[in-house]
Amino acid sequence: MKNQVTIYEYERVDDLLTQQLRIIQSEEVFSFSMDAVLLARFASIPSKGKILDLCTGNGVVPLLLSTRTKASIEGIEIQPRLADMARRSVEMNGLTAQIAIREGDLRELYKEAGHGSYDAITVNPPYMPVYSGESKLNPHQAMARHEIHCNLEDVARAAMRLARPGAKVSMVHRPQRLGEIISLFRQYRLEPKLIRFVHPRADAEANMVLIEALRDGKPDVRILPPLIVYNEDGQYSPEIMQIYYGSEREEHDHSNSEEL
Amino acid sequence: MKNQVTIYEYERVDDLLTQQLRIIQSEEVFSFSMDAVLLARFASIPSKGKILDLCTGNGVVPLLLSTRTKASIEGIEIQPRLADMARRSVEMNGLTAQIAIREGDLRELYKEAGHGSYDAITVNPPYMPVYSGESKLNPHQAMARHEIHCNLEDVARAAMRLARPGAKVSMVHRPQRLGEIISLFRQYRLEPKLIRFVHPRADAEANMVLIEALRDGKPDVRILPPLIVYNEDGQYSPEIMQIYYGSEREEHDHSNSEEL
Repeated sequence: MKNQVTIYEYERVDDLLTQQLRIIQSEEVFSFSMDAVLLARFASIPSKGKILDLCTGNGVVPLLLSTRTKASIEGIEIQPRLADMARRSVEMNGLTAQIAIREGDLRELYKEAGHGSYDAITVNPPYMPVYSGESKLNPHQAMARHEIHCNLEDVARAAMRLARPGAKVSMVHRPQRLGEIISLFRQYRLEPKLIRFVHPRADAEANMVLIEALRDGKPDVRILPPLIVYNEDGQYSPEIMQIYYGSEREEHDHSNSEEL
Repeated sequence: MKNQVTIYEYERVDDLLTQQLRIIQSEEVFSFSMDAVLLARFASIPSKGKILDLCTGNGVVPLLLSTRTKASIEGIEIQPRLADMARRSVEMNGLTAQIAIREGDLRELYKEAGHGSYDAITVNPPYMPVYSGESKLNPHQAMARHEIHCNLEDVARAAMRLARPGAKVSMVHRPQRLGEIISLFRQYRLEPKLIRFVHPRADAEANMVLIEALRDGKPDVRILPPLIVYNEDGQYSPEIMQIYYGSEREEHDHSNSEEL
């Protein structure tokens, strides 16, 4: 922990994979899922310039992206409590020079930030329409999971406005929404170029989709090899192990090497 | 061979997998590919009613579907030489009571057949835009592979007109076109419901997509487990073996069983 920050009693501080980062979470308010981790790994991001993470929650995606690029990263989050959590996590990791968290409405951001002002955009939006429901959610959880403050069309429109021509927009979502995602993205000049489906097992239907679109791109989709989460024996697949633990193992190897 | 039909010198007669069917082919004019076989296996078809196969070529899809249903099957093909090949294959297999081949333009068929007159539609259309090109193709091959007589929008519009509300429309295509396929299908009230990607190997990008849409359906996509063609050792995967040889093996087993 590089900087001391306030941690409230309903919060906890977790290791963020093996990236030597820590993150403030709260079961009650927000904690990150595998979806955010896979998005942060999947997204094509520039080595410099400006990256924007929409619906940033507790800032998990900006924190993870910071290990992959020198670009400046902004996250925008509409819930004050979550934006505050994200800011404290950034501060705690000593990353305030690279990551800025905005509290605000992504639908209005273009007015302040300007059209076409980002070189890449990532987003892990609420997955479920407002009307579908788990009634046991508290308001924080409900906003993170349901399209209460922004729906798919709001996300596509905001991304179109905020991405410069040629910028990549990367999203993680549920395959159930794929038809709507592709129609709306194309309607807002975000051409799907790269799609990867995540299957719990090799013989199971996909339960997650990673999609990268190119602002003003031409139609031409590549479907990457399926990402399988669990092997037949119920253990994480080698690729998931690499994503979750790969860096640590490499660092262990390095620390044992006399050349380093 | 149930009926004698004319076979021209540039043609040959092949076994159609292990379905005890035979089919007239011609390298010069048209021969079927794995795509048609996978489509005929993937498509949801009713046990009775009327099925239509657009861009039917030498009739491979109707012939294969005839083993799965008692429904009447029509195929429409714009190239006279191919429609004639398809008709002779139907005759040769003694299937004229179940399968009818129309020579004509799928864009005009609704005028003759009527709106909403089919319970299911299948299509293995030309994959490539007119402008992209293999210059060595003869006119027959070019029409089968390039969108010369009908493009994706023509197919979607024709399917929308010809399918009854609630009918399923199944297509095989290239993943490169997925964005356009989904946008156009949805524009023409064909809601994608079931998608399966075909990967040559588990670690390779998809080179084929099977997609089933529901006329007037609600948005809700299921992504089936990936269909892998080759194992790591370069042999057909068990699922492909089952599709290509499954029936024969079952029949062999049956023929060895005294109970039968």
